[in-house]
Amino acid sequence: MDTVSVSKSHGGTLHVVRHPSRATGTDMTFSIFLPPQASAGAKLPVIWYLSGLTCTHANVTEKGEYRAACAELGLIFVAPDTSPRGPNVADHEDYDLGQGAGFYVDATEAPWAPHYRMSSYILHELPEVVAAAFPVDLGRQGIMGHSMGGHGALTLALANPGRFRACSAFAPICAPSQVPWGQKVLGHYLGPDPARWRRNDAVALIEDGARLPELLVDQGEADEFLDRQLRPDLLRAACAKAGIALTLRMQPGYDHSYYFISTFMADHLRWHAARLG
Amino acid sequence: MDTVSVSKSHGGTLHVVRHPSRATGTDMTFSIFLPPQASAGAKLPVIWYLSGLTCTHANVTEKGEYRAACAELGLIFVAPDTSPRGPNVADHEDYDLGQGAGFYVDATEAPWAPHYRMSSYILHELPEVVAAAFPVDLGRQGIMGHSMGGHGALTLALANPGRFRACSAFAPICAPSQVPWGQKVLGHYLGPDPARWRRNDAVALIEDGARLPELLVDQGEADEFLDRQLRPDLLRAACAKAGIALTLRMQPGYDHSYYFISTFMADHLRWHAARLG
Repeated sequence: MDTVSVSKSHGGTLHVVRHPSRATGTDMTFSIFLPPQASAGAKLPVIWYLSGLTCTHANVTEKGEYRAACAELGLIFVAPDTSPRGPNVADHEDYDLGQGAGFYVDATEAPWAPHYRMSSYILHELPEVVAAAFPVDLGRQGIMGHSMGGHGALTLALANPGRFRACSAFAPICAPSQVPWGQKVLGHYLGPDPARWRRNDAVALIEDGARLPELLVDQGEADEFLDRQLRPDLLRAACAKAGIALTLRMQPGYDHSYYFISTFMADHLRWHAARLG
Repeated sequence: MDTVSVSKSHGGTLHVVRHPSRATGTDMTFSIFLPPQASAGAKLPVIWYLSGLTCTHANVTEKGEYRAACAELGLIFVAPDTSPRGPNVADHEDYDLGQGAGFYVDATEAPWAPHYRMSSYILHELPEVVAAAFPVDLGRQGIMGHSMGGHGALTLALANPGRFRACSAFAPICAPSQVPWGQKVLGHYLGPDPARWRRNDAVALIEDGARLPELLVDQGEADEFLDRQLRPDLLRAACAKAGIALTLRMQPGYDHSYYFISTFMADHLRWHAARLG
C-alpha cells in the first residue's frame, strides 16, 4: 500500500492511497478521511462513497464538501475509483463505457471480465484493505453514491441485506435495465440477456424481493439526465409496492453536478450518522 | 458578458462569467456566488477572493467550501482569474511567472506591460463589471486570498485604505521583495529596482506608512513554503511596529493546499461578515 498524499483538513486527516488489487488485477487508488475522533484510538463508523461516470477518487475528495460534517459526526469517509485503469485494461472511446465507468458490477463478458470486478472490489477487497490500515468499524458501514455511484450504492446495499446500516444516493441511476446508459453498459459487461442484469439494477432487485428498511435519495429537478437516465419515478413505485421507506426529495433548480451534491452532503452524512450510532 | 454556466448550490446560484477586459486587453473569466438572500432584491456585501499561483477562478470555486457559509451569512463571493491569458499574452515556462502568476500588479516592463494589469482589473474594472450585472453593495467590500492571492489581498487593501472594510489571507506571501517568488516576478513585471516594488509588498507598504485597523491571517505550520516564500514573521513584526491589529493564527499540521483553506474558510467569512454589516 503506497501513500500518495496526506493532508490535514477540518481537524482530521485526508489520505490518498494506492494499492495492488487482487479483484481487479490493477493498482487501485482511493481517498480516506479520518475525522479528529480517529486519533482517540476507537474504531469509527465508515461511509463508502461511490462516484459517477468519468470520476476518480479525486472528484468527491475535492468538491464533495464532506469533511466538515464527517469531523463533526465522527465518520470515516472512503472514496474509491470508479473502475480499473491502465494501459492493459480494456477501454472504450465513449465516456460511459470502460475506464471511469465500471458501474460497480463484476463483468462476465470479454474483453471486460479480467479486470472489471468493481462489485467484488467494493464489497470485499476494499474493506479488508482499509480495515488493515485504518480504524474503521466494519460493524457500522454506510454506503452512498452519485449517479452511476448512486446505482452502485443502491444495488450493493439491496443485494447484501444487513451489510450496510444506511444507504443513500444523489441522483442515482435507479433502473439501469430500462435506460440507455445501463442497457448499453450492462450489455457489454454482463451480456445481452436482460435477465442477467437484474442483480445490478435497484428497481429489478426490489421487484425480485430485495428489501432494505429505508433509503434516502436527493434528486435535482433541473438535472439534464433525470427523465432519460435516472428515473427516480421507477424507484418510487418499486419502493411503494415493496414497503421500503424511501425518502425521495426532488430539489427544485438543482442540476447533476457537485454543486448539487455538496449542497446536500451534510444532510446525508447526518442521516447516516443517526443510523450508524 | 457571456454566461459560461449557472448552477444552483446551497440555496443560491453560482455563475461563471466571461467578459472582455479593458484593463488586460483579453477576455477574463470569474465565478460569482449569489446567496439565497440575493433573490430578495437588496444589495449584499461582496467578498473578492484572490487565488494563488497556477490557479484560475475554478480552484476555489470547486474546492473552497465557501458557499454554505456565504448562504448563511448573505455574502456574495467573487473569484477572478490570476492573470490575463491567451495565445497573444506574454508567458513563461515557469509556473511562477506569466500566465497564472499575475501577482495582482500592473506591470510596467516588456513583455508584460500590455496585458498584465491585474491591480487595475481587480480594483477598478471587475467591481464595475460585477456591479452592472449583480446586486453587490460596493460600500461593503471585503477582500481575501491565498498565497499569491493573499499577497494581492493584503497589498490592494493596504494601498487603498477605506476601500475594503475587511481583509484576510490564507498563507499569504507577506514580503515579496524579500523572498524568491517575489524577487523574481516583481523584477520581471516592475523592473530590477526594488524601490519600485514597495507598493506591491505588504510589509514594505506598512513600513512606508500604510495602515489598516486589523488583519486576519491563517498559516499552516506544515506549509512547505512557509520559511522560504511566505514569511508571516515579517508581517507580524511590521504590524506590531505599526500598531495594526494582526490576528495571525499558526495552524499545526496544515499544508498549503485547499484542504487547509477550506478548513478555515467559514471562519474567515464570519470575520468578514461581522465587519461588513
